[in-house]
Amino acid sequence: MTNRQITVEELPADALLPEHFKLSDAPMPVPGDGEVLLRVILMSIDAANRSWLRGATYRAAVKKGDPMPTYAICEVMDSNSPKLAPGDIVAAEAVWADFITAKAHKVQKLPKVETLSHLMSVYGIAGKTAYHGLMSIGQPMAGETVLVSAAAGSVGGYVGQIAKALGCRVVGIAGGSAKCKWVVDEMGFDACIDYREAGLSKALAAACPNGVDVYFDNVGGKILESSLNFMNEKGRVVCCGAISQYDTDTPTGPRNLPGVIVVKRLKMEGFIVMDFAHNDAKCIRAMQHWVSTGQIKVTEDIVEGLENAPHALIGLLAGDNKGKRLVRVAADPS
Amino acid sequence: MTNRQITVEELPADALLPEHFKLSDAPMPVPGDGEVLLRVILMSIDAANRSWLRGATYRAAVKKGDPMPTYAICEVMDSNSPKLAPGDIVAAEAVWADFITAKAHKVQKLPKVETLSHLMSVYGIAGKTAYHGLMSIGQPMAGETVLVSAAAGSVGGYVGQIAKALGCRVVGIAGGSAKCKWVVDEMGFDACIDYREAGLSKALAAACPNGVDVYFDNVGGKILESSLNFMNEKGRVVCCGAISQYDTDTPTGPRNLPGVIVVKRLKMEGFIVMDFAHNDAKCIRAMQHWVSTGQIKVTEDIVEGLENAPHALIGLLAGDNKGKRLVRVAADPS
Repeated sequence: MTNRQITVEELPADALLPEHFKLSDAPMPVPGDGEVLLRVILMSIDAANRSWLRGATYRAAVKKGDPMPTYAICEVMDSNSPKLAPGDIVAAEAVWADFITAKAHKVQKLPKVETLSHLMSVYGIAGKTAYHGLMSIGQPMAGETVLVSAAAGSVGGYVGQIAKALGCRVVGIAGGSAKCKWVVDEMGFDACIDYREAGLSKALAAACPNGVDVYFDNVGGKILESSLNFMNEKGRVVCCGAISQYDTDTPTGPRNLPGVIVVKRLKMEGFIVMDFAHNDAKCIRAMQHWVSTGQIKVTEDIVEGLENAPHALIGLLAGDNKGKRLVRVAADPS
Repeated sequence: MTNRQITVEELPADALLPEHFKLSDAPMPVPGDGEVLLRVILMSIDAANRSWLRGATYRAAVKKGDPMPTYAICEVMDSNSPKLAPGDIVAAEAVWADFITAKAHKVQKLPKVETLSHLMSVYGIAGKTAYHGLMSIGQPMAGETVLVSAAAGSVGGYVGQIAKALGCRVVGIAGGSAKCKWVVDEMGFDACIDYREAGLSKALAAACPNGVDVYFDNVGGKILESSLNFMNEKGRVVCCGAISQYDTDTPTGPRNLPGVIVVKRLKMEGFIVMDFAHNDAKCIRAMQHWVSTGQIKVTEDIVEGLENAPHALIGLLAGDNKGKRLVRVAADPS
């Protein structure tokens, strides 16, 4: 058994590039007391990974030379803890590598489901982020209009499908006509706007004739600014991410803030998925129900091979994924 | 009896100037069926008046040639409605004039208190805006830090005094050293920062060593942007006004939005005082209690004479008032 890892060679000042990362052989890690040796199976690739390279967020900043952090699903290979045994499947704060060690009490044992990737998509961080943000902050009601940016992304597709299941009119925003078609045809949105086309405001007016009650914002920037102009009074803006602002050194703020918040009495609220962990069981039960009825389709975009992780993240930031992006480092254990 | 009124001669493209208004004699209005003739006693001068000249807000836009709208306390002079009699005191949507007519069912009868101006300051729109925004959106708790911009303004002073009464550390932001001294010495704030001095961020760091839990924003713009950087996780931003953005044609947005909302899981929420009318009795009872204990001082800044209303508003936008600004058009009835 050999080990490889990918480190951050240089912190990006502007757009993230392959040369900011370095793949190299690494010693096989040895678990200490109370620790486990883990084989990384699937790594979650998220826009938030880029923000970790910009400084401290809800987690400490990544420094030059650090292995790139990630959430991963792993198999326990060796255990110095009575809590876990070889063969157990766990979720862990990992790094981009074949093998890592972790404190046994810091990892979360997972059920042995048939398709492990589902634990990172519909029943994992993507599905839970969509559910908790939409239900706890957005609080949509049947008959309302829900607008979702990055609608073809890992979270956006679930947001829209949940809102449809609840009886809302659902409008997506995505980049490119192929993605927009996929959002409508496959994800079942009522409409999807291509933000790369001219006339975003005109398109929003046409797609949201009754205004917008809930805007689930994954992007920030100009799309947030335009969307705010279509909010109804007492509308809710779920601040989930700001992907348009992560990969640049010159972020811009919506010029209509805070005026439009005051005038329309809007609520804007941020969250991270861990804030709602106490509601995870309810979330999973609901998602399983909607998957069973066919109201939610599971969307995954799996890139094969640890060595392709930098490209998987860079491509995600450019918007080339459809659904939840993962990197497969090793096959599911049989 | 003669009547005068002030109309909007020109909608301001940028800063509001005296020549945008015109004072002229006007016919004495005659109340129709179900209407009352009102003598205007006190007019409320608010930063929001400026925003009404920018287009539709929570009320219809003011058009060129319209009399300037205002909230006013008035005395009923003549009544064609069984609901009101001459001598009654009412609050009304009025205009800048000596006399107006109004539909009797559209005005609100007021108690005959000794000092009518208190019904527009501590027990009126200023005090109620401070109370409802702070209590319902800010939700401060003893031991937390509350930051208030426009701290010497009509609303800001009450926000800070209420928060002090609740056991919070209270930090103000105001323009000029004289105002800042007044905010600390007279309003009892723990500290007040002069935003006209260089080094706003440094001053915020020094005045808020434990960060900011509630930011009551009356100004928007750069002060909002800087304040957001000092918010604690799960902090609440009460979006009450955006005075820095009203009197300009080139508004700027906080560049750290929505990133900081996501990372710190902040809530930003706008409101207008009418949203909480169902809680007005509770508010008035609390304010009366704090006035009786001396924890709230009533601050008023009364400009004499209808003809001085334009200067009263222009001066308010430049920040030359301390406490709630009113224009007195006629003496309190004896």
